[in-house]
Amino acid sequence: MASRPLLTDDQLAPLARTVFDDIRATRGTDYVNNFWRALAHDPETLKATWERLKGLMGPGALDPLVKEMVYIAVSAANACEYCCHSHTAAAKAKGMTEEMHNELLAVIGMASMTNAMATALQVPVDEMFEA
Amino acid sequence: MASRPLLTDDQLAPLARTVFDDIRATRGTDYVNNFWRALAHDPETLKATWERLKGLMGPGALDPLVKEMVYIAVSAANACEYCCHSHTAAAKAKGMTEEMHNELLAVIGMASMTNAMATALQVPVDEMFEA
Amino acid sequence: MASRPLLTDDQLAPLARTVFDDIRATRGTDYVNNFWRALAHDPETLKATWERLKGLMGPGALDPLVKEMVYIAVSAANACEYCCHSHTAAAKAKGMTEEMHNELLAVIGMASMTNAMATALQVPVDEMFEA
Amino acid sequence: MASRPLLTDDQLAPLARTVFDDIRATRGTDYVNNFWRALAHDPETLKATWERLKGLMGPGALDPLVKEMVYIAVSAANACEYCCHSHTAAAKAKGMTEEMHNELLAVIGMASMTNAMATALQVPVDEMFEA
Amino acid sequence: MASRPLLTDDQLAPLARTVFDDIRATRGTDYVNNFWRALAHDPETLKATWERLKGLMGPGALDPLVKEMVYIAVSAANACEYCCHSHTAAAKAKGMTEEMHNELLAVIGMASMTNAMATALQVPVDEMFEA
Amino acid sequence: MASRPLLTDDQLAPLARTVFDDIRATRGTDYVNNFWRALAHDPETLKATWERLKGLMGPGALDPLVKEMVYIAVSAANACEYCCHSHTAAAKAKGMTEEMHNELLAVIGMASMTNAMATALQVPVDEMFEA
Repeated sequence: MASRPLLTDDQLAPLARTVFDDIRATRGTDYVNNFWRALAHDPETLKATWERLKGLMGPGALDPLVKEMVYIAVSAANACEYCCHSHTAAAKAKGMTEEMHNELLAVIGMASMTNAMATALQVPVDEMFEA
Repeated sequence: MASRPLLTDDQLAPLARTVFDDIRATRGTDYVNNFWRALAHDPETLKATWERLKGLMGPGALDPLVKEMVYIAVSAANACEYCCHSHTAAAKAKGMTEEMHNELLAVIGMASMTNAMATALQVPVDEMFEA
Repeated sequence: MASRPLLTDDQLAPLARTVFDDIRATRGTDYVNNFWRALAHDPETLKATWERLKGLMGPGALDPLVKEMVYIAVSAANACEYCCHSHTAAAKAKGMTEEMHNELLAVIGMASMTNAMATALQVPVDEMFEA
Repeated sequence: MASRPLLTDDQLAPLARTVFDDIRATRGTDYVNNFWRALAHDPETLKATWERLKGLMGPGALDPLVKEMVYIAVSAANACEYCCHSHTAAAKAKGMTEEMHNELLAVIGMASMTNAMATALQVPVDEMFEA
Repeated sequence: MASRPLLTDDQLAPLARTVFDDIRATRGTDYVNNFWRALAHDPETLKATWERLKGLMGPGALDPLVKEMVYIAVSAANACEYCCHSHTAAAKAKGMTEEMHNELLAVIGMASMTNAMATALQVPVDEMFEA
Repeated sequence: MASRPLLTDDQLAPLARTVFDDIRATRGTDYVNNFWRALAHDPETLKATWERLKGLMGPGALDPLVKEMVYIAVSAANACEYCCHSHTAAAKAKGMTEEMHNELLAVIGMASMTNAMATALQVPVDEMFEA
């Protein structure tokens, strides 16, 4: 259940409708997922979030699939149920294979383990790591 | 400061020494960083952690540099000071350019933002995301 | 599903019953929400938690609504599903408008973004920020 | 220490310089704090982050001071050392009194406590909390 | 719902089958819980995770029940829904009484509260705590 | 550095002084650590926090040392630098041996690993775990 209603298409303010149009055109599908429908109560934030995301997740210095995997990693560490689901689906759509998914999960697990141990031990940072 | 002393080479138990030898041989450097010196109080965990890490972070279905960037993402989300430093240094050593670092940071930030909003809103997961 | 049964009114120990009476009297409703029913297994902790909460969330140096919004912010960052729901409901009951909710969510998202970037970058604290 | 060098004014790209000019003009001080100097390696992200922050943290449906306190709350929950410092300083500059700070800290602590207990107990969300 | 299908026994690769056999033999039950069925897509990680867990959670310098309670504490702080459930069940199976559970929850709550306050205040570490 | 000044003994309000007296008497030492000096700006919260902590961390259904180890686990997962230090020191003072510390750290690491993997995979909770 949501702590805020999801907006249907006919409940959208004009600015939100424009953003939904762009989401549909960019993704080549009529389906707009629940995150955007929850965010649509605030058209300005909807627009700012979508445009930043669209600009960031396409081709660049990093491959779009790499960026989806980074997104999964952050979402797992932040325990975001929704985002683990949506970005795993997105990564698969962008070509993440079973083998890549396996390695990604193992690295996320390993990082979480050494993060916790380094923090519990309060290991001092080596001077050679300073930028 | 550490919550546990860092062990110097001459304080290592035989099993820990073997692990340190392998760290040095694998990395081609005499320098062993503080994380392993803090972990060396427990040679079994030192060995298990190092061997799993070594097996995981080399070439595989994912590029080693991609895995370092995933590691940075998890470490930032978990607020691990040590790991942010050590894996940023490792990623640079494996070829992370300024442009790649820029995009990585932007994706980490964006994911953290949408994670927090999706969680605050408790957005229900779309059925189409189900595996 | 819960990892501990929720207690019904007739399962309460006398001390827990007293706390439930106070929750009902304070809030002016017969409904006691699930959090307190899960906590009621431990009447001492139930009592300490309720009394501290009651003392803290009423009028003071900060407006009760401001405190509910701070509560939502912490709950989102800690990924507490229950608390995001219960405190969003509480904030609305205390007068949080649609516009205030919009801004709150945007600030929570923004803070999460810059938190993650500042941590990933390990930005050193400016001297001028020292108390 | 930083995992990325802080840029001095004479190292800024033209776009970053424009953002720094706006930070200085908006805040009415020549001082630009370290977060922006670390972000300045990526002028596009610097600009997007600053402009979103500037637009969000001014007057609106919520008082600017309330938004700074929400920012502190998120930063504490995310364990962001830098952000706890910088936003505590900002909140004081915007009029947070000793009494307000006291209450804010108590609410942050209380929320963190009940978040952890509700999560450990996996308390099911009451139907009445559904939006 | 899962972001990855759970494997049934007849979908297991030979190595995964061997691990499932060991889980069943070690625990003395035919039931293999969902976590292992989700991990079974990657037999190497399944094996490494199970073997490390089995080696760690049995008798040692700490009592197995103590280790289950530590596991619950970490899982609550990391907001892992699955793990809060599975390790609460495991702790009960190993003898955690109602009274022990009560105290555990209270300590988890208290620690979360003082963690958040110490972080928000950025309290400097006392020299006497240095290892 | 702190985001709030630490109070010296002669800066304490009368209620805070009473709490400090009790801390000293309870612990049998004149030393009062920084956390309490940062909290002393708010004597009510200082008193509530100290009294709850004192009541909770002594003998009960769980051994005081077990409770300190649970505290370390939560503090590591929450990335609280101060609390990792102070509670590691407290656990050692209460008899945590090198071997116990080793196992504690390994369990904290293991739990963090499986938490992250279970969350990334969004493993559905087994019905048998329901309370």
